[in-house]
Amino acid sequence: MEDLLEELLAECRPYTQQGTLANYIPELAKGNIDDLGIYVQRSDGRHYQVGDYKKRFTIQSVVKPILLLLALLDNGEEFVRSRIGVEATGKPFDAINVTDQSLLSEHLNPMVNMGAIAMCSLIKGATYEERFQRLLDLTRTLAGDPNICLDEAVYQSEKRTGNKNRALAFLLKSYGLLQDDVEEVLDCYFKACSISVNSKDLAQVGFVLANRGKLPQTDERIFPSRYAHYVNAILMTCGMYDGSGDFAVRVGVPAKSGVGGGIMAVVPTRMGIGIFSPGLDGKGNSLAGAQVLERLSKRMYLSIF
Amino acid sequence: MEDLLEELLAECRPYTQQGTLANYIPELAKGNIDDLGIYVQRSDGRHYQVGDYKKRFTIQSVVKPILLLLALLDNGEEFVRSRIGVEATGKPFDAINVTDQSLLSEHLNPMVNMGAIAMCSLIKGATYEERFQRLLDLTRTLAGDPNICLDEAVYQSEKRTGNKNRALAFLLKSYGLLQDDVEEVLDCYFKACSISVNSKDLAQVGFVLANRGKLPQTDERIFPSRYAHYVNAILMTCGMYDGSGDFAVRVGVPAKSGVGGGIMAVVPTRMGIGIFSPGLDGKGNSLAGAQVLERLSKRMYLSIF
Amino acid sequence: MEDLLEELLAECRPYTQQGTLANYIPELAKGNIDDLGIYVQRSDGRHYQVGDYKKRFTIQSVVKPILLLLALLDNGEEFVRSRIGVEATGKPFDAINVTDQSLLSEHLNPMVNMGAIAMCSLIKGATYEERFQRLLDLTRTLAGDPNICLDEAVYQSEKRTGNKNRALAFLLKSYGLLQDDVEEVLDCYFKACSISVNSKDLAQVGFVLANRGKLPQTDERIFPSRYAHYVNAILMTCGMYDGSGDFAVRVGVPAKSGVGGGIMAVVPTRMGIGIFSPGLDGKGNSLAGAQVLERLSKRMYLSIF
Amino acid sequence: MEDLLEELLAECRPYTQQGTLANYIPELAKGNIDDLGIYVQRSDGRHYQVGDYKKRFTIQSVVKPILLLLALLDNGEEFVRSRIGVEATGKPFDAINVTDQSLLSEHLNPMVNMGAIAMCSLIKGATYEERFQRLLDLTRTLAGDPNICLDEAVYQSEKRTGNKNRALAFLLKSYGLLQDDVEEVLDCYFKACSISVNSKDLAQVGFVLANRGKLPQTDERIFPSRYAHYVNAILMTCGMYDGSGDFAVRVGVPAKSGVGGGIMAVVPTRMGIGIFSPGLDGKGNSLAGAQVLERLSKRMYLSIF
Repeated sequence: MEDLLEELLAECRPYTQQGTLANYIPELAKGNIDDLGIYVQRSDGRHYQVGDYKKRFTIQSVVKPILLLLALLDNGEEFVRSRIGVEATGKPFDAINVTDQSLLSEHLNPMVNMGAIAMCSLIKGATYEERFQRLLDLTRTLAGDPNICLDEAVYQSEKRTGNKNRALAFLLKSYGLLQDDVEEVLDCYFKACSISVNSKDLAQVGFVLANRGKLPQTDERIFPSRYAHYVNAILMTCGMYDGSGDFAVRVGVPAKSGVGGGIMAVVPTRMGIGIFSPGLDGKGNSLAGAQVLERLSKRMYLSIF
Repeated sequence: MEDLLEELLAECRPYTQQGTLANYIPELAKGNIDDLGIYVQRSDGRHYQVGDYKKRFTIQSVVKPILLLLALLDNGEEFVRSRIGVEATGKPFDAINVTDQSLLSEHLNPMVNMGAIAMCSLIKGATYEERFQRLLDLTRTLAGDPNICLDEAVYQSEKRTGNKNRALAFLLKSYGLLQDDVEEVLDCYFKACSISVNSKDLAQVGFVLANRGKLPQTDERIFPSRYAHYVNAILMTCGMYDGSGDFAVRVGVPAKSGVGGGIMAVVPTRMGIGIFSPGLDGKGNSLAGAQVLERLSKRMYLSIF
Repeated sequence: MEDLLEELLAECRPYTQQGTLANYIPELAKGNIDDLGIYVQRSDGRHYQVGDYKKRFTIQSVVKPILLLLALLDNGEEFVRSRIGVEATGKPFDAINVTDQSLLSEHLNPMVNMGAIAMCSLIKGATYEERFQRLLDLTRTLAGDPNICLDEAVYQSEKRTGNKNRALAFLLKSYGLLQDDVEEVLDCYFKACSISVNSKDLAQVGFVLANRGKLPQTDERIFPSRYAHYVNAILMTCGMYDGSGDFAVRVGVPAKSGVGGGIMAVVPTRMGIGIFSPGLDGKGNSLAGAQVLERLSKRMYLSIF
Repeated sequence: MEDLLEELLAECRPYTQQGTLANYIPELAKGNIDDLGIYVQRSDGRHYQVGDYKKRFTIQSVVKPILLLLALLDNGEEFVRSRIGVEATGKPFDAINVTDQSLLSEHLNPMVNMGAIAMCSLIKGATYEERFQRLLDLTRTLAGDPNICLDEAVYQSEKRTGNKNRALAFLLKSYGLLQDDVEEVLDCYFKACSISVNSKDLAQVGFVLANRGKLPQTDERIFPSRYAHYVNAILMTCGMYDGSGDFAVRVGVPAKSGVGGGIMAVVPTRMGIGIFSPGLDGKGNSLAGAQVLERLSKRMYLSIF
């Protein structure tokens, strides 16, 4: 398997140049477009890694499935489902035309910004600082990495420039879907997106989702298997932005990408995969990362279909 | 397993009353709302069936994955992909605002009417009658049932009243995505929707998709396993209309429903399931049928996530 | 006033080169991009004309207000209003998402194709050929020109290639807003768009609208003044496609443009104006024609605001 | 004319009961649904008034044309036009899907909230408090009423609950269409909407627009006639929300309504009309007020078409 990963690294490195660094905040534009790292954690306990797998980047939207897990743990499936829908057709911006609160919540989904901001208000904690700490703790637990921490520069930058997210939060509030102070909720959300991780971390989190809630080393159950079904199903239908259908056809496993360049893929019962390559395609997904996953899926028959 | 199916039949029969018969053509409104049939074909060769599994109904949208398979067999994956997109976000009606042909084809998908009409023009045949015959033959082969035939009354009714489909076809034509005579293409499409099947037939077709292209008895390969991945992935993201995300979360297997009351479900490597119950929910899916599948999935751990 | 028109002709002729000939049917693409004709009919009985005011072109969408007048004459205001809305926000294509018939008719408006096709079915006649003849007769009467006739080549071309209009007509039919045979209705619509006129004809029709229903020479009343208010109000809010708001601000009089290059402008109580210049701007309005009208309005204080 | 107004008051008073008080802020819901006041200022210097014409209410959206006038006075037509479009098709919420700044500004219009918020940032002043003071001063000048002032309770209520407007402001900011602090801009906007006026005030402002910029008593010119054309044209196409087309057909004069129950109507060269009746129809326009205007227009031939 080491050979296969080396091969994929060589084959896919050239694609890094075809992508574009996210530039909506200056910090992300500072990335190194050549980077490509791959980490695979298998259910037999083995792990394989190549390239820039140790490099750190911000988790960005890959935090959304972790946020969803915490919301499920804190509130149960029925409550979360009643507040935030699960359809891929629910485009966040279109939803703003909706005048009915229940219709709006049906049009949200946990993988779009508006749904993720709403989820911040569902997780528990006396303060939003405490809520973020609980999210960070869960991320550390799932990744088995107590050193995961906040990228302060990215966080400050997101907070300063995140006016579209502010707009979404105020819309939620105007529909009664957000009770708390908008800036406090957003502060938690901006911090969540700015958690600094590496490919290994994403592979570990993906593995726990593949393993339906149990940690790899200790077999400790972190969440019920039912929640893995819930999260993985949503990743399959909405995890790769507007490229989710294409990814389902080409790769065939649940995955989540972030504009920081990370992709977390979940191969149920078999493996968790973390990829990092900051050059993005037109839909916001890591371009070389998607290439790696497509090839890996075909050569190792990973498609769940 | 017989007991489980009997149990599900008893539990879910009451839900039949909560649905509504499709009424856009008179023939469909004549159905018996109480009907509920279940047929399961397993990979060990065994099959189980209860209730009204022998009752015939028109295949309607469940023909779309078969149409897609034939289009793939006739043209290959790349060609089909270049003509008809795969995103769940591609709502057929919204797409009409699109002024660019390549953008429109990207917004189609094989599980919506506009995409399915376009697929009729992709399958091969000297005439559209021949194309339909080839589709009917493939359906018979996949279902292992040479007696499957057209429901003439439903076909005539669809043809007479299908003006929305006519509108979609003329839009395709106006964008250069349909070369042939619109009425001929539609005639093929209306016939395709009017193929008369029963729960067993759907279970058999679903099984071949679960079995990645090989028939159950003879192990004969009808299509490459790659096409099963392609079709099943699309069923997962778009097979249950606007309830696809919910179905992925609750049931977790690829499936396709039709307004005739049928649902075909695919449990990769394990089983094909055919359900019939003509009472529909607000999204056009068999209401009692979805209840059966949710319970069956939970009790037999069918979710692929 | 002759001097003013000569001045405008000289000033605006250079703009003809900036426009583009309509090319959706070959016949329209054969026009001469340099053409510019202006005809002004005043309420004091005088008329002024310069440039290519005798050149003939097809009326295209400028027939829509005449169609609306005939529908009003045949059915009265309340009936027409109940079938076809009057809001500028009613985009024809968006309306297709609407599932409710009354909502759809509210979203139509007489100046978009879908609304105009619906109007063909409102005008009276034993056959659609007779309906078209009545429309042609009304056009001749309003223009005071018995020689106005059909451009057969353009009509045949529209009929052959008008698949988007076919789509719209079938949508109307599927919502129960069209009872008759689609091809017959469309035949009438395609002929209506292919009526051959010149700048003088448009000025005369515009004058009758400005004169609230009475012919210039004889003072004969063709329609009640109430219908002039109805038609002119709709021209103001929707007559210049997506440029209607801009035109209201810059020119300030009701007007209707067509892709044949014609613009008919109505200066209530004062004058009717007909312009012809086939080079179109990005919104489908005659580019040099709009320039002429803006300058004429400013120098003669035509704005009704 | 006194008799006519008394007649209209008697005929239209029953309609007040069919409307609904705006309830998005508690202060507006406290209005008296029976109120109906009419004030007409004619160009011959005479004025006529009946009913509750002295009652005060908040100006709400009727401030938008005054804001637009001030933006025009401070920046000129070309600059304002380049920042805020004029099409009725530009729905504020739909515009949020737009990713291109110039496209977004084209889709704004001065009569929708998003456009009006953007206009607050165009008017001049060292602080936003000073900008509001200048707007208040202009309102007083146009209305000839130095006692017009802010309704503090409504203002505080708007400020506390105006989260949808906050969302719109942050969207403007995220597209670079708003440079200043969002809360400061909104504070100015909320104050603008909370200016307390009566029917007479609206009639006076409407009269200056009808009189193309000159005050009634002194003939002093407050703004160039060109700006009256600009504002009145926009009122005609977008002044009555989604009922603008219907109002153009039925009444035929530029007008602006507000959810406080006011309508200001402009009859170019002839009169300004102010109406107050707080019961609103489904589109947010004063229901009895629109009835009064329709009847007044028909009996006095006010339609400009």
